[in-house]
Amino acid sequence: MYTYQNLIEKCNAAIAAIEYPKSPQGLYEPIAYALSLGGKRIRPVFMLLSAQLFSKDAEAFMDAAVSIEMYHNYTLLHDDLMDNADVRRGKPTVHRRWDANTAILSGDAMLMEVYKRIFTAVTNQKALEVFLNTALEVCEGQQYDMNFESRMDVTLSEYFEMIRLKTGVLISCALKMGALMGGASEQDAQLLYDYGIQIGKAFQVQDDYLDVFGDTRTFGKAIGGDILEGKKTFLLIRALNKATATQKLQMLDWLENTNCDPQDKIDFITQLYEDLGIPADYELCMQECYDKADAILAQLQVPADAKAELKAFADKLMHRIN
Amino acid sequence: MYTYQNLIEKCNAAIAAIEYPKSPQGLYEPIAYALSLGGKRIRPVFMLLSAQLFSKDAEAFMDAAVSIEMYHNYTLLHDDLMDNADVRRGKPTVHRRWDANTAILSGDAMLMEVYKRIFTAVTNQKALEVFLNTALEVCEGQQYDMNFESRMDVTLSEYFEMIRLKTGVLISCALKMGALMGGASEQDAQLLYDYGIQIGKAFQVQDDYLDVFGDTRTFGKAIGGDILEGKKTFLLIRALNKATATQKLQMLDWLENTNCDPQDKIDFITQLYEDLGIPADYELCMQECYDKADAILAQLQVPADAKAELKAFADKLMHRIN
Repeated sequence: MYTYQNLIEKCNAAIAAIEYPKSPQGLYEPIAYALSLGGKRIRPVFMLLSAQLFSKDAEAFMDAAVSIEMYHNYTLLHDDLMDNADVRRGKPTVHRRWDANTAILSGDAMLMEVYKRIFTAVTNQKALEVFLNTALEVCEGQQYDMNFESRMDVTLSEYFEMIRLKTGVLISCALKMGALMGGASEQDAQLLYDYGIQIGKAFQVQDDYLDVFGDTRTFGKAIGGDILEGKKTFLLIRALNKATATQKLQMLDWLENTNCDPQDKIDFITQLYEDLGIPADYELCMQECYDKADAILAQLQVPADAKAELKAFADKLMHRIN
Repeated sequence: MYTYQNLIEKCNAAIAAIEYPKSPQGLYEPIAYALSLGGKRIRPVFMLLSAQLFSKDAEAFMDAAVSIEMYHNYTLLHDDLMDNADVRRGKPTVHRRWDANTAILSGDAMLMEVYKRIFTAVTNQKALEVFLNTALEVCEGQQYDMNFESRMDVTLSEYFEMIRLKTGVLISCALKMGALMGGASEQDAQLLYDYGIQIGKAFQVQDDYLDVFGDTRTFGKAIGGDILEGKKTFLLIRALNKATATQKLQMLDWLENTNCDPQDKIDFITQLYEDLGIPADYELCMQECYDKADAILAQLQVPADAKAELKAFADKLMHRIN
């Protein structure tokens, strides 16, 4: 049995060992660059931890795991271009280091490389179908996210559906593919899919929370970025729902004000979140996700040590502990 | 047996009948729009004409044919964005009608839709592999084309390799997939692949020629566009090779001049092409492609009427006759 730490190392080694065609350099160099930026390798590790619940040879599915990580990194590459983001994991994004056309075409080639690899690596047809459907759903999630930028009336259920598509389904896909490839029943594979939705939801809601209430050192990004960008986060939508008419007008005024000191805007909105009890709502939402995730895991009749390792990895992600 | 005209109509009907998810509209509407712009449906018709050489039921491969046309239209959608083109087939391009982000994400979703459809439609593993490899080669061709923009020293062999990747291999892929799905031997399928390379080469070189020497009414685009954009075409590369030192300096002066009357630039370069005998070089290049294509077709032991129909379609494309 592998620990999640083992698997992170194995995934990183497998990614570092990928060989790309030498030419045209302008097409393949940005792909290697995007994958070399690091990251927590959440999706491939979940895939292998899930496979390990049912199979003694989880490492046999490393090529599929690398493909799912490559897919995730293709989405980051194109999302960063669409969001006009300058930095990813402390390094310039592909469209900043090269240019927009390079980001478009290299991202496209990366996506094609994913399908080519998945087709070879995944012989289980049901697992392949999960990926084919999920890839499109992730696109739908990004589209909803972009649609929300110009709207102030996004409901919490619309938000949850957006993050299910943008973040949840790919984690679920990784878990379900791992299960199916490892020999799980359709029912157990579906339980792991449902588990992934809860993990993905908690992970995204936590990301929204840490963007405001996190510690810059551990979060790794500037605090308050979502507020400045007017992103429709769990906190903002919940606050707009709970605010009095006066508070809501104040919020909208601050959010639409582009002339104020950014820190003043962050401070005002953060204070309002606290006044409205949003941190407690966050805790409640997270607890609901944990409870649902635990209840799902309890239904799986699999070796206890492998199940504990899966749970340990999820716990690490959820609390961002070491 | 189907005529190519039958197959064009059947392809258009199948494309018109595609049903897209209703939501998110911003993702799927541009895909339907891009596919509705028309076009000659060259790749799906070649696929079905090729299948018909070996199978009595070519129409059974319609889903694969539609997928290859969808792939081609995805490349146009993203290429138009990268080339900053305003118009495609007389209508605004997707990034003009919507915006750049819509073009990126809808193009991505279109590509994912292609793979989803191809995996279902194509059960022949060898045919699937041809597609998986070809998709990446087309990207490489686009990358070389973009690289050439900033170079004046592109050789004719570099140009031919670029158009092989950008135009040839997808036509070849359609022909080979059709053959394999229709039950052809690996050898016959490869002959059709090689045939497609010649057809694609002639088609692209003809496109370069008509951009300068064509008739606006039948060509459907403004004459001289390639000259104004400084595109590295067969004509330009051949002319730079044949020009005297003085002529070459004059050419470079005109090509780099952004202050002159565009028509004067077109007229000067066109006259130089004529002085240097480029139209005759064009005829020779086309004849070589035809001869090679005919020699390849002659090697195929298939029903004469089906072979004649394939040749009739290629002839129509090559001479743009009705």
